Amino acid sequence: MMAKKFTVTPWRVSGSIDYNRLIKEFGTERITNELMWRIKKHTKELHPYLTRKIFFSHRDLNWILDEYEKGNKFFLYTGRGPSEKVHLGHITVWKFTKWLQDKFDVELWFQMTDDEKFLFKPNLTIEETNKLAYDNALDVIALGFDPKKTFIFSNIDYAKTLYREALKVAKKLTFSTVKATFGFKEDNNVGQIFFTSMQAVPCFLPSVKANKNIPCLIPLAIDQDAHFRIARDIMPKLGYYKPAIIHQRFLPALEGSGKMSASEGTTIFTTDSPEEVEKKIRKYAFSGGRETIKEHREKGGNPDIDVSYQWLTFFEEDDKKLEKIYNDYRSGSLLTGELKQILIDKLNKFLKEHQRKREKAKKILNKFIVKN
Amino acid sequence: MMAKKFTVTPWRVSGSIDYNRLIKEFGTERITNELMWRIKKHTKELHPYLTRKIFFSHRDLNWILDEYEKGNKFFLYTGRGPSEKVHLGHITVWKFTKWLQDKFDVELWFQMTDDEKFLFKPNLTIEETNKLAYDNALDVIALGFDPKKTFIFSNIDYAKTLYREALKVAKKLTFSTVKATFGFKEDNNVGQIFFTSMQAVPCFLPSVKANKNIPCLIPLAIDQDAHFRIARDIMPKLGYYKPAIIHQRFLPALEGSGKMSASEGTTIFTTDSPEEVEKKIRKYAFSGGRETIKEHREKGGNPDIDVSYQWLTFFEEDDKKLEKIYNDYRSGSLLTGELKQILIDKLNKFLKEHQRKREKAKKILNKFIVKN
Repeated sequence: MMAKKFTVTPWRVSGSIDYNRLIKEFGTERITNELMWRIKKHTKELHPYLTRKIFFSHRDLNWILDEYEKGNKFFLYTGRGPSEKVHLGHITVWKFTKWLQDKFDVELWFQMTDDEKFLFKPNLTIEETNKLAYDNALDVIALGFDPKKTFIFSNIDYAKTLYREALKVAKKLTFSTVKATFGFKEDNNVGQIFFTSMQAVPCFLPSVKANKNIPCLIPLAIDQDAHFRIARDIMPKLGYYKPAIIHQRFLPALEGSGKMSASEGTTIFTTDSPEEVEKKIRKYAFSGGRETIKEHREKGGNPDIDVSYQWLTFFEEDDKKLEKIYNDYRSGSLLTGELKQILIDKLNKFLKEHQRKREKAKKILNKFIVKN
Repeated sequence: MMAKKFTVTPWRVSGSIDYNRLIKEFGTERITNELMWRIKKHTKELHPYLTRKIFFSHRDLNWILDEYEKGNKFFLYTGRGPSEKVHLGHITVWKFTKWLQDKFDVELWFQMTDDEKFLFKPNLTIEETNKLAYDNALDVIALGFDPKKTFIFSNIDYAKTLYREALKVAKKLTFSTVKATFGFKEDNNVGQIFFTSMQAVPCFLPSVKANKNIPCLIPLAIDQDAHFRIARDIMPKLGYYKPAIIHQRFLPALEGSGKMSASEGTTIFTTDSPEEVEKKIRKYAFSGGRETIKEHREKGGNPDIDVSYQWLTFFEEDDKKLEKIYNDYRSGSLLTGELKQILIDKLNKFLKEHQRKREKAKKILNKFIVKN
C-alpha cells in the first residue's frame, strides 16, 4: 500500500514506520496541543498516551467534542482479531480506551473478529478463533471496563444481529472499492471481500438499537484505519454519522522495526511468566546502547532507538521517572542491562496484577458478552 | 452467460430457452426412462412432472438412489428469493418437492434468501424482503409439507447458524470463481459476491447438525444451477457430499418466451382472484391458434407453442385429459377461447383450495420456522 520502506495495512505492518507520512497518506489530522487542552477541559488530566503522542492522529475528534458538549454523548468502539493470545501491544490501546470510558462515562462496544481471522489465516479453524475470542475477552475485562457499559461480542456468535446490518453496508460497497482500499486481488476469497462490512457494523449498531443517531469514537492502532475510511464513506449513505477515530502508534516489535505481532518476531503475551518476560527482553529487545560498557559510559546510549526505552513510554506512566531514565541512558550512567531490568520489573509488576484480574474475569465474563 | 438467443442465470432468464443446450452447457445429465423406472421402484408411481420431462435434467440422482437403497436417506433442499408475492411458477417446483417428501419420507430444508433479494434489488429494503419471506412461507406450507420434517428459514433471521457455516464456504471461494460463474464485475457489491456462500450452507447444514454426512437432493428451476456448481466444487473440500440436483423447466411466461417472473411480463400470483386470473389468461396467454375460427376449425391449432396448453402440462395431472386437449386443439375441434377456459377453470380451482390452505397456514407458520 505504501511506498518502499514500510507497509501498514490491516493484515501486515512492517518496516520502519514514518508516522508523519501516514498522517499525510491516510489523510488524518495530527492531535495538536490545542485539541489536547480541549480534551483536558472534560477529563481534568491528560493520559500520558496523549501527551507522549502515542495517540497521535485522529479524524473528527473536534466534532466528537462538539457533540459531547451539546450533551450528545458518543460511544466507544474498538476490537480485536482473535488469532492468538493477547500481547502487550493490544493491551496499550485498550488501556487508553478504558481511560476514555472512565473520563467520559460512555459505552464501549468491543468486536472480536473471529470471522475475519478464520478467513485470513489459512490454518486457523472456526472453533479455534471462536474459542480465542472468549479467551482474549478476559484480557479486556481484566483492564477494569464497566460491565454495565461494556458489550463484547464474537462476530460469529453475534451474527444474528450483525449480518442483517452488515448487508446494509455491503449493498453500498463494490469490489472496486475494497480492491483499491485493501489491495485485494481476484484470488482473495469472497469472505475476505465481504468482511469489512461486518467491521463497519458497530459504527452504527448502537444507533440502530437506540433508534437515534449516536456519535461513535474508535480508538485503534493505525493499521486498522482502512476499514474505517470505507465505513466513513458509507455511514452517511445509511443515515448515520461518520465514526470519529483516534489513532495509536504501534508498540514497537522487540527487534526494533514494525509493530509487535504474534505472527512475526518475538511477542510478549499477557500470560507470559516473569521468567519468559525477562528472557525475551534480555535476548531480543533492540538496544540503543554502545558496543562496550566503557564506550557506553563515555558516549551514552540512544534511547530514541532503544526498544526498552520505547516500551517504557507505553508502560511507565510517571513522566518524571521516564525523563530521568531518558537522561541517564543518554548520559551513559544507565547501562542497557539496567534499562532492560527497569522494563522487566515494570512489565512483570503489571502482568502479575493483570494475570490476577484475568483469572477473576473468568467468573464475570458473561456480564460482558452479548450474543443476541 | 449463454449465446445470443437466451439467457439463464440466477438473476435473469430471457429468450427462447433451448433446454438441450442447457444440459450441454451446464454439464448436467438428462433424466432417462431408465432413471425414471429406478425412481418408480421406490415411489410406486411417477409424478407427471417426470413423465412429461418437466423435471428433465439432474446431477448425481443415481448416486442419491444408491445411497437411499443402502439405507442412507437424503434430505431435500430448495428455496425462494422473497422479492414479491409467490406466483404459479414457484408453486410448480414446490409441488414436486412435496411429492418427493411424501414418497421418500424425507426432511425438507427451505431457504428464504431475503439477504440475496435485498442485495440484488436496488429498491427493496431489508424490512420488506424479510416480511415477504414469511408471507411466501405461507404458500410453501399451504402445499401440505410435513411440519415435523420441514424447516423453513429466512437467511437474515437464521444468520446466527448460517453465517458461521457460510464462512467455511467463503474461505474456499475466490472472486475469480464467482466472477466466472455469475458474470460479476468489479462494480458488483461485496454482499452479492459473498452471497452464494449463504446459498451453499443448507447443502451441508443437516450434516453439521447430525454430525454425519447426509446426502442432499435439490429440486430447482434450472436458473439456480450456477450456485450449486460452486457448492458441488466446495462441499468435498469441507468433507461433505456434493449435493445432487434435479432440474425443472420454467413455467413459461404468459407472453410465451422465457420464464414467468414478477419482474418482467404478466404474472399470476397465488393470491390472485378468479377474475384476475381470467383476465390475465384471456388477455396475455400466447395462443397457438389460427387467425380466424374458420381457419382454426379447418387447419387446427399448434399446442406446442400455445402457452395455455403448456401451462396445462404443469397443472392438469390427468394424462388422458391432457392428451385429449392436445389432440382436440391440434385437430381444430377445440378453439383457443375454449382451451383458455379449461386452463382458467383448472387454475381457479387450484387457487381456491390453495388460498384456503394459505389462510390456515398462518396459524401453523411457527411450526415450520427455524431461527436458531
